[in-house]
Amino acid sequence: MAGCRMKLELSRVVQGSGRLGVLKDLGKTGQHSLEVPGCLLHTHLGTVPHLTRDTLQTLSNLPAVTQVTLSNIAEHQEVLEEFKDGFRRFAGLHNTVLYCSLHDPATPCPTGYTTNKTVSVWGSGGRIELTVARFMALQKTVQPDWYQSMADGETWQSGTSRKRVRKSVDRTLAHLDECLLAHQNSQELEGVEVFGVVEGGDILEERVRSGRETAKRPVAGFCLDGLQTGSMHQALRTQLIAAVTEELPEDKPRLLQGVGRPDEVLACVEAGVDLFEGFFPSQVTERGCALCFGFGISSDPELAGRAPPAVLELAEEKEASGETQHNGDSNPADQSRMTSFEIDLKDKRYKDDFRPLVEGCGCYCCVNHQRAYLHHLLVTNELLARVLLMIHNTAHYQAFFRALREALANDKLDVLKRRVLKEMTD
Amino acid sequence: MAGCRMKLELSRVVQGSGRLGVLKDLGKTGQHSLEVPGCLLHTHLGTVPHLTRDTLQTLSNLPAVTQVTLSNIAEHQEVLEEFKDGFRRFAGLHNTVLYCSLHDPATPCPTGYTTNKTVSVWGSGGRIELTVARFMALQKTVQPDWYQSMADGETWQSGTSRKRVRKSVDRTLAHLDECLLAHQNSQELEGVEVFGVVEGGDILEERVRSGRETAKRPVAGFCLDGLQTGSMHQALRTQLIAAVTEELPEDKPRLLQGVGRPDEVLACVEAGVDLFEGFFPSQVTERGCALCFGFGISSDPELAGRAPPAVLELAEEKEASGETQHNGDSNPADQSRMTSFEIDLKDKRYKDDFRPLVEGCGCYCCVNHQRAYLHHLLVTNELLARVLLMIHNTAHYQAFFRALREALANDKLDVLKRRVLKEMTD
Repeated sequence: MAGCRMKLELSRVVQGSGRLGVLKDLGKTGQHSLEVPGCLLHTHLGTVPHLTRDTLQTLSNLPAVTQVTLSNIAEHQEVLEEFKDGFRRFAGLHNTVLYCSLHDPATPCPTGYTTNKTVSVWGSGGRIELTVARFMALQKTVQPDWYQSMADGETWQSGTSRKRVRKSVDRTLAHLDECLLAHQNSQELEGVEVFGVVEGGDILEERVRSGRETAKRPVAGFCLDGLQTGSMHQALRTQLIAAVTEELPEDKPRLLQGVGRPDEVLACVEAGVDLFEGFFPSQVTERGCALCFGFGISSDPELAGRAPPAVLELAEEKEASGETQHNGDSNPADQSRMTSFEIDLKDKRYKDDFRPLVEGCGCYCCVNHQRAYLHHLLVTNELLARVLLMIHNTAHYQAFFRALREALANDKLDVLKRRVLKEMTD
Repeated sequence: MAGCRMKLELSRVVQGSGRLGVLKDLGKTGQHSLEVPGCLLHTHLGTVPHLTRDTLQTLSNLPAVTQVTLSNIAEHQEVLEEFKDGFRRFAGLHNTVLYCSLHDPATPCPTGYTTNKTVSVWGSGGRIELTVARFMALQKTVQPDWYQSMADGETWQSGTSRKRVRKSVDRTLAHLDECLLAHQNSQELEGVEVFGVVEGGDILEERVRSGRETAKRPVAGFCLDGLQTGSMHQALRTQLIAAVTEELPEDKPRLLQGVGRPDEVLACVEAGVDLFEGFFPSQVTERGCALCFGFGISSDPELAGRAPPAVLELAEEKEASGETQHNGDSNPADQSRMTSFEIDLKDKRYKDDFRPLVEGCGCYCCVNHQRAYLHHLLVTNELLARVLLMIHNTAHYQAFFRALREALANDKLDVLKRRVLKEMTD
């Protein structure tokens, strides 16, 4: 049976301000665990973009779960079937829990291609239509530890009709039942966990129905879909999530898809989300930017020292340049525009800025290079710029999640929230 | 005075088959050395393309000399002047000898822009015209250990008139005298070495005159310019080099610019060249290819085992595909086309090839990944492909130079030559 081994141990649950705990017994041998709230390691075709495993390992406290997506993998099905040893070995991954999702949260997905029996994913070679049978055949080839079941998620655009939303919930439940049946009849998938997908667009009753029905099935956890950045305002998102999580069992993890901005992460944690997809650092890197927001709330100067300089600096820089940086809500459809949590190193003002990206950051990039050198690498189009930015952005984002867990443990989520939201208004 | 410290100790000189030795007392403190025949570490804006220093250090036996080029640096002069600590620190380089050349051998340079008093380099922002004064000001800012003097190298196109070639030799000598004068009057450049540049196009007498005259100046070594791949046939190149090196003192190194193909390297070593610019692996990487030629000549199976499988394989693959791979001579103007020493991993036939790039290669890429995974990374445009290819290509090329020195030491250059040329005819 699916969903029988993964175990969520919550050490702290405060209504309206999040859950703190550890997701235990992950992986085939059950030796991995993941602290929540936490984020998965986002990959593109099995690699954290641009980084070798060796380079990645120089970062401490990486999440034990790596996310790969069927949209990257589906077109390689034949090759993987011939390879036989699963995607983990194909991509040279070792010692990580493999989670397989349907779509890549960092890449927008065209709508209009689902039917009663199929969903579509987009690879580099175009659209691939998946039936439940093909979807499950792919899972057998990929050999993940954990995958999301097939889902019709085409309801995230505002203005989707109630009828369409209802259909999406029905279809997604039907897909889940089919997936679970195939799963239970498959020897290859023994010990692999299934996450059910909660749909329902922006309609509260459908969200609640989707959550309640999914929770009746033998799933290991829940993916909350259709709530991604750009789909709705944060207030509505929080309201929907809070309503859904009330329907879900306490002891199973909730993974929110498509949300990565620090301010949104904080609000969603308060609403009861445990896990996030870690695609945000990749997006920031792709636009040549560096995460540079403060999240230090400790009164211990040694701990606090890591982040505050970045905060002050960022505020200063914005002022100096007369920049008006909005948060994404002002342009909800565009996930790819710069947020107020980052600095654009292609900007001329960094050409003679000899400071590290973030004063006190211990990542390889900040220890060895200055902003001016990164600016020059970006301007002359040298790929090392992306490599160095990816190192820093991954380190910074993971440190933010550590700070978030610390804040939860010490009843200081409010302080952290004020600090992070300050970045947006400064 | 320039050129007083670097020391070339030759352990073996065989007329017509190369010089073996060590270039000693390199760097400000004289603690570095470089085996010859050897190649420099080619960089783009101070980085071996796409690799962090950490990743680079996973390769053993890297050359102690890093080459940077004024074409990358000139446009950053103001920033470097403000930075004050030289280009080595600006680029986060440590513990390496810095050699500064005029042009980037991996990038073609437009002609028609030299005057009696100036040469031009092309950066990402366009053309920058250098007088000797600006050239020397740049050297003071870059703070290399060793640089090539300013030179008029616009005679490499076949059909350049004798008059133009003579003018280029005269100008280059005049530039050298001016550079040396400015150098000797500069405190900042104390202890820095100057290489004189030998020009002369494809005209034997001018080559000899340029060599003879340059050798009269107090230079530490010689750059042989205008002989790059694409400029002439190998037989003519070898003849010109042999004639020039006869005019040059035995105890100073000769660096050949713009030649990197293994077959051409071997011929030029025989003609008396000591050093090469290491840009060839970068070019191979940029076209998505992997070096995969054999150079194992040892009868010790453990040593030989490293390379032979690659040879057999390459021959097999060419046959199987009916590919006709020419060496560059058949299209001499095009430096960027694939050579017969590499395989094109974007080719469909690698999509289910689960072998490493080169059987037995110990580089990070070959130990951890298969050709099929690299194919997929390339096809989906993931930058990690370039990172991994650059690791392998650098390791393979450096191993080739080690094999070349071993062959020279053991009187087996002929065997190596046959082995390498076999790659071209198979």
